[in-house]
Amino acid sequence: MTSSEQSPLTRKLSAFVALSEVELAVLERLHQRRRSFVAGRDMVHQGQSDQAAYILSAGWVCSYKLQADGTRQIVDFQVPGDFLGLRSVLLRTSDHSFEPIVNIEAAEVLKSDLLDAFAQTPRLATAILWAASRDEAMVVEHLVGIGRRDADARMAHFLLELGSRLALVGMGTKDGYDCPLTQYHLADVLGLSAIHVNRVLRQLRERGLVTFRDGRVSFEDHAGLVELAEFDAAYLDQSGPLLK
Amino acid sequence: MTSSEQSPLTRKLSAFVALSEVELAVLERLHQRRRSFVAGRDMVHQGQSDQAAYILSAGWVCSYKLQADGTRQIVDFQVPGDFLGLRSVLLRTSDHSFEPIVNIEAAEVLKSDLLDAFAQTPRLATAILWAASRDEAMVVEHLVGIGRRDADARMAHFLLELGSRLALVGMGTKDGYDCPLTQYHLADVLGLSAIHVNRVLRQLRERGLVTFRDGRVSFEDHAGLVELAEFDAAYLDQSGPLLK
Repeated sequence: MTSSEQSPLTRKLSAFVALSEVELAVLERLHQRRRSFVAGRDMVHQGQSDQAAYILSAGWVCSYKLQADGTRQIVDFQVPGDFLGLRSVLLRTSDHSFEPIVNIEAAEVLKSDLLDAFAQTPRLATAILWAASRDEAMVVEHLVGIGRRDADARMAHFLLELGSRLALVGMGTKDGYDCPLTQYHLADVLGLSAIHVNRVLRQLRERGLVTFRDGRVSFEDHAGLVELAEFDAAYLDQSGPLLK
Repeated sequence: MTSSEQSPLTRKLSAFVALSEVELAVLERLHQRRRSFVAGRDMVHQGQSDQAAYILSAGWVCSYKLQADGTRQIVDFQVPGDFLGLRSVLLRTSDHSFEPIVNIEAAEVLKSDLLDAFAQTPRLATAILWAASRDEAMVVEHLVGIGRRDADARMAHFLLELGSRLALVGMGTKDGYDCPLTQYHLADVLGLSAIHVNRVLRQLRERGLVTFRDGRVSFEDHAGLVELAEFDAAYLDQSGPLLK
């Protein structure tokens, strides 16, 4: 199988484990139940129980928590290769909701599928635990971002993180990436107002660092943006397989 | 083995999986390399690589991220039964630091120990993935707390969460729990000033909800505190084994 034929999840986990033929086969079998979901309609509701997890193979999703006052807080976005609700399939009730941002393709995964896969190849369990650890590291970075970074650095850090995540699954380069997010999505995840987001993006563009326009993030000065954000990608841990 | 002889981690994972004798034995073997650490000295440094993970069996630890300006942001506290750096053992370099708050006891766990344990009992891999998912759900709650809750609700939510976590390992009840945290720890994790923490605690005490004094959190009105915090413990998912 060439890397372009592999699922995004396989490409991603390959950054952690040098997968054997057997492990590759088990992983591809997890993609059997393919489903499509339309943009803007929740796939999993907060508080829902007995739900499946999904492996996202095409498109973007946002995960969010509903507040008692009816507002929502976006926790993160999922891109191809990411699990949707891996946490939800293990916890009794989902602690958050998922909404596709565009029409998406995803494979449904039941708890029994995970148990079967882990029984066949325990290294895969470690690889999926790695992916979950990486997801947690991202939430921690967002926590630090909201707590400590100013608006420019917060935006720069977020756009760089997305770029690294997409590069891992072959959907981004140091030049940039396609991005369906609106300024409202950015405002929500970064804890800024939409007007503030607009101003920050204009400043970053005018300083020649990055442009976000017409669904495309273009890095004009990747190194300069890394410096502004104090971005250290070590927490994304994607520099080639650790387990041989 | 009676539940009082079990390690806190075993008690905690039992909330997710009805563990078999074999699984119990594998889990207890993970506790072989026992270590002691003194209060106030980092066990794992952010940026350190090739480090072990630890299972905390006695005492409290805080995990934090260092900022470029030298300040630190506490991400969470660990209590008995929690992993320290499970994420660090899987990611190449640790994305955060650990500091014991009091003298602690912990068992060292290497990546190879985890792989061996998962190979012997894949259900244990699912249980540890559950624990990691729960940790992530807590970070998400803290993110929402800093983004959306006012200071009273944030404090109330945090004290209730700690109470539920400690109850799971037999160290807390609805009456309260012993707690070695200082007002500086609370200020740091909640994103408040120490003066603000002091004022919030006084208000909660004067309203007859909770008292935090002399190393003890006492719930005077647990239900009232739950209402104030809009605390829904579902994300802690600890209502008895899900996997039989």
